[in-house]
Amino acid sequence: MSEVSERIAAALYRIRETRPLIHHITNLVVMNDTANVTLHLGALPVMAHAREEVAEMVGMAGALVLNIGTLTSFWVESMLIAGQAANERGIPIVLDPVGAGATAMRTATSQRLLERLKVCIVRGNEAEIGALSGSGGVVKGVESVQGLENPTAVARMMAEKRGLVVAITGRRDYVSDGKRSLGVDNGHPWLTTVTGTGCMATTAIAAFAAVEGDFLIAAAGGLALFGLAAELAAERAQGPASFKVALMDQIHNLQPEELARGARIVAIPLD
Amino acid sequence: MSEVSERIAAALYRIRETRPLIHHITNLVVMNDTANVTLHLGALPVMAHAREEVAEMVGMAGALVLNIGTLTSFWVESMLIAGQAANERGIPIVLDPVGAGATAMRTATSQRLLERLKVCIVRGNEAEIGALSGSGGVVKGVESVQGLENPTAVARMMAEKRGLVVAITGRRDYVSDGKRSLGVDNGHPWLTTVTGTGCMATTAIAAFAAVEGDFLIAAAGGLALFGLAAELAAERAQGPASFKVALMDQIHNLQPEELARGARIVAIPLD
Amino acid sequence: MSEVSERIAAALYRIRETRPLIHHITNLVVMNDTANVTLHLGALPVMAHAREEVAEMVGMAGALVLNIGTLTSFWVESMLIAGQAANERGIPIVLDPVGAGATAMRTATSQRLLERLKVCIVRGNEAEIGALSGSGGVVKGVESVQGLENPTAVARMMAEKRGLVVAITGRRDYVSDGKRSLGVDNGHPWLTTVTGTGCMATTAIAAFAAVEGDFLIAAAGGLALFGLAAELAAERAQGPASFKVALMDQIHNLQPEELARGARIVAIPLD
Repeated sequence: MSEVSERIAAALYRIRETRPLIHHITNLVVMNDTANVTLHLGALPVMAHAREEVAEMVGMAGALVLNIGTLTSFWVESMLIAGQAANERGIPIVLDPVGAGATAMRTATSQRLLERLKVCIVRGNEAEIGALSGSGGVVKGVESVQGLENPTAVARMMAEKRGLVVAITGRRDYVSDGKRSLGVDNGHPWLTTVTGTGCMATTAIAAFAAVEGDFLIAAAGGLALFGLAAELAAERAQGPASFKVALMDQIHNLQPEELARGARIVAIPLD
Repeated sequence: MSEVSERIAAALYRIRETRPLIHHITNLVVMNDTANVTLHLGALPVMAHAREEVAEMVGMAGALVLNIGTLTSFWVESMLIAGQAANERGIPIVLDPVGAGATAMRTATSQRLLERLKVCIVRGNEAEIGALSGSGGVVKGVESVQGLENPTAVARMMAEKRGLVVAITGRRDYVSDGKRSLGVDNGHPWLTTVTGTGCMATTAIAAFAAVEGDFLIAAAGGLALFGLAAELAAERAQGPASFKVALMDQIHNLQPEELARGARIVAIPLD
Repeated sequence: MSEVSERIAAALYRIRETRPLIHHITNLVVMNDTANVTLHLGALPVMAHAREEVAEMVGMAGALVLNIGTLTSFWVESMLIAGQAANERGIPIVLDPVGAGATAMRTATSQRLLERLKVCIVRGNEAEIGALSGSGGVVKGVESVQGLENPTAVARMMAEKRGLVVAITGRRDYVSDGKRSLGVDNGHPWLTTVTGTGCMATTAIAAFAAVEGDFLIAAAGGLALFGLAAELAAERAQGPASFKVALMDQIHNLQPEELARGARIVAIPLD
């Protein structure tokens, strides 16, 4: 997959050259962390959710992140306004359906966002994507406590049906646009001990989507960078909080050529 | 108190085995920190406050944290809905009355939550518990700047009157269910230099309450673990932020047998 | 400028002696960080935005921070209520117009707060102050991507016109009350890699404004302390997150005499 690795390295270079604005309407738990991930990666974060300004704000953005982790009906309305403005301007939307499957509101809101907006990439854990695609899995709060039998098939089928890129993160990350499927093997078990790492991965994907129009490559790029940074950070970890500090440092320090060398992306043939 | 120490060590073991979901409706300042404390301890955090979903979400929880640190009337309504659902299902509620005594709204809201819901444990600093029990103390913002003359008596009387466990945290923590009273001597002065450590202690208590039905033991367990982690973290501190990183690491790294050995819990005889 | 340095060192001493309460109505991204900056500096933070309590809360405060980083109309109303109560009691208000110039709502809200309230100090980056004073600059999200030709003249003119102190932060910070202008040369490039450092600087200014009635000195003091802490922290940085931990540690550890020695404040003569 050296071609994919070269492309994601080139995308990281473009992020740092052009510094795209990543507009987030996201949850209250990870807001600071995802703003920092955006900045460390080389892009510019903005968090804005007032319905009076979201359409204007997204107009200068390179990508829009919608994350329902602490949703209310007020915030969902702003997501729809921002999303419609993004669609009109061709700005890619990345959706993180945090906790879909845990409550009816989260599942229904995720479905509604997918139906009302043209979403380019959706990233979730196995249970969240399972809930949205009707493929099983069990979510406890926001955690996948029972996964999917065949995540690569689920990603591919949902991607094909919805016409978007599906990214399922876990020990191996699966990414599919319905025709092509990739596995990303970067990552580290420490990631499961820190809150919001899924949301941070979504943010990384959005930064790549702002500069790479092939959203399969963008999703794989964000996940490879995030997972590789975690691998490098693990060497400094004395526990989950020192791991998180090191992870954030590495996201900033990682250079395109290191990403090209360290990305472990494999093509997954059709079943 | 070796029997208490054995019980709290066993409770920590159960938290890590069963990974109970701790549903928080909490303040905007500490949301990330308390989610991480929950996860590092071994439980699963979820933050959800939309009135449409809180009753459903709390249904899968092992405990519910209500924390009024940045309350609005909208959030208080969600706390009542979630609290009633928790009561119906026998899910323990832990209340953190942040800033009670500082404004009429905070004092009245705390009283209202205590009257309308069956709360199992309330944890506050001396001035907050003083305000709720009419025993004196002065709060400045959210900080106790003038304490209680006899915190152990205040804890015992309020616990007896309200039929719950009262935990007053400070240099020594006092815990009482109205009949039995314990002192917890774990902790470190660095804790006073980091924002939200009281809220984090409340979260630790909630994780214990999810697996230990004797809420006096649960409260003492959460406070002993949190205080012991602080003692161990102090060795790595070069200031409050590196202390906080080390504290979070230690909450994750601390093993049940270390907790049994390191907990400093004393029985306090009736006056 | 040894006289200014002595005065800001004395102010830091007073912050730690009197521990003024700093009431923040601020954005969701930086709430935890600015609470910790306040506490590490020696003051006491409180975050409160419910309209029912903000007037009462600000009554015990030494300063009020209004920060529009994630504003909604609900929050702006609370800012006006708190601000009016602060004005009635002579409590200084420090405004951070985050993202002014990026959307009409942010620019108009900043102007409205400046018109309806007596603000003592406004701190922004070059583009934000440029937008409020009609002097140019380009903001992308919340970042200044094109600065001002003559920031010292802009600060002085806006300060004179509005009757307040204007602080423009960047490589050199410019502070003016319309008659006197100072440059603050403390700081470090790492500050640009962490989200919310502008907001943290505003918080530091507010702590100084609570104890120093000459708001030009207060603004210079907050910026010198924050910048000097960054310089000291840079020695421990392995990336932006470890820099941030070290920065927070240094804000706590910095002593008044070190601040007097390390502050690099220069008088800027009128053009």
